[in-house]
Amino acid sequence: MPKINLQTVLDGIDEYWSQRTVAKANGQLFKLAKGLGATHWHRHDDQDELFIVLKGSLRIRLESAECSVHAGELFVVEKGQLHSPVADAPCEFMVVGLNITSNRAGGKPN
Amino acid sequence: MPKINLQTVLDGIDEYWSQRTVAKANGQLFKLAKGLGATHWHRHDDQDELFIVLKGSLRIRLESAECSVHAGELFVVEKGQLHSPVADAPCEFMVVGLNITSNRAGGKPN
Repeated sequence: MPKINLQTVLDGIDEYWSQRTVAKANGQLFKLAKGLGATHWHRHDDQDELFIVLKGSLRIRLESAECSVHAGELFVVEKGQLHSPVADAPCEFMVVGLNITSNRAGGKPN
Repeated sequence: MPKINLQTVLDGIDEYWSQRTVAKANGQLFKLAKGLGATHWHRHDDQDELFIVLKGSLRIRLESAECSVHAGELFVVEKGQLHSPVADAPCEFMVVGLNITSNRAGGKPN
């Protein structure tokens, strides 16, 4: 596998909440995405979902709390945890997990 | 789990090639490290090892090639692949894998 430039991949993404897989290691997908607006509330019963924000901020709403994750910060949504990421302004982030976990509207795919 | 600021953790690391685990998701450890100098040649027969360079550059030597991975770039060393990362100047990076994969000298732990 050649090296991957994260910004080059992000620059090619033209749809918010659409995840682009850039690498696979030990069964995990390393995905890049852009966010803007609110996603659907959803949960993943099969996997933890790890976010690393690369540009801007992602406000991750949980049932009883919310966490503003800024560029250079990492946050894990644990398996089964109801959540809804919100981007109040355009942001860019990496998501790591077992498969694609977002539809076009930014929620769990059907 | 609270959010993690990657730079804050990196600023607290005072030993090159010493990996600090900052998160765990789906059985993977997300680790931060600083590098300087050449590591031992080694392989991991049980896991892929994914690098994301955060500052500076990491020159990843493989048996028949080498790849200079710069800040903002990602590279996967596949399971079983003989490798030796080298940092010609101080660098900072994330490593993702199943366990701690480096001793103080930057090689496979005994």
